[in-house]
Amino acid sequence: MIVLGIDPGYALMGWGVVETEGSRMRLINYGCIETKAGVPMPDRLRALQLGIRDVISLYHPDEVAFEELFFSHNVTTALMVGAARGAAIIAAAEYTENLYEYTPMQIKQAITGSGRADKKQIQQMVKLLLKLDEIPKPDDAADAIACAMTHCQAGVARSQFRMK
Amino acid sequence: MIVLGIDPGYALMGWGVVETEGSRMRLINYGCIETKAGVPMPDRLRALQLGIRDVISLYHPDEVAFEELFFSHNVTTALMVGAARGAAIIAAAEYTENLYEYTPMQIKQAITGSGRADKKQIQQMVKLLLKLDEIPKPDDAADAIACAMTHCQAGVARSQFRMK
Repeated sequence: MIVLGIDPGYALMGWGVVETEGSRMRLINYGCIETKAGVPMPDRLRALQLGIRDVISLYHPDEVAFEELFFSHNVTTALMVGAARGAAIIAAAEYTENLYEYTPMQIKQAITGSGRADKKQIQQMVKLLLKLDEIPKPDDAADAIACAMTHCQAGVARSQFRMK
Repeated sequence: MIVLGIDPGYALMGWGVVETEGSRMRLINYGCIETKAGVPMPDRLRALQLGIRDVISLYHPDEVAFEELFFSHNVTTALMVGAARGAAIIAAAEYTENLYEYTPMQIKQAITGSGRADKKQIQQMVKLLLKLDEIPKPDDAADAIACAMTHCQAGVARSQFRMK
């Protein structure tokens, strides 16, 4: 099974493609879709949508896992990141109904066994579990890979979209 | 010139199509795209995107005017409404580069001459200026029509997307 993980963002949207066979996981590819500050919002959203479409048509994922967003402040940022996330969800929903989302807490728990792990510990485990030479860069891509891995892991209850 | 006005929302997205010739304005049609609570978010966003696409392919607007969103609280709502707005912007951006947005204040000022007008006063002016028998319902549709009218009005500086 091929799983696409997405870490939604407006300036940087991370993605990672992981293949799983039984308990084995293999990293296929990863990257970021970048949109530049100063470019009008409609163009940035289109770029994110088209970027995710490109990734999907290259790797044909069976399932797509999103990292759920949390904000405690800054409503304007939430509007923009919400729109970016919407663009990615729309691009994925055009292709498959198999969409899932995981909270940062679920991802930490699944990858490191602890809900209190920090970013560095997650990245180290991503490197270890996927037998990589380096930690994938940038952080957004590593987060997306961790999200895909969370979805792949046996024992993790699959998490359908909770936001309605 | 045909202008599509959009009042972005997640459960209800208002739209209104206004034709302008010189200083004359005529209401062509209006309505709301509704998405039901309890339906998964990806399906709701797709419905909004497809709904706006349908409106565009029916009325072939030359330009599209969005009402700008403001929130002072509730970040979770902002994430969802931001995504809904993103879905509409993407649908419009697929079709035209002529996208504009107006703040509630700009719309009040343009329609009633006062930035302090309330919703009822705006709706009365929409009815009067477009020579309608009734105030368009629901409010979301009336807001979208007011946004399209704001864009049509000579003298109102056209407002490109400010959010970057």
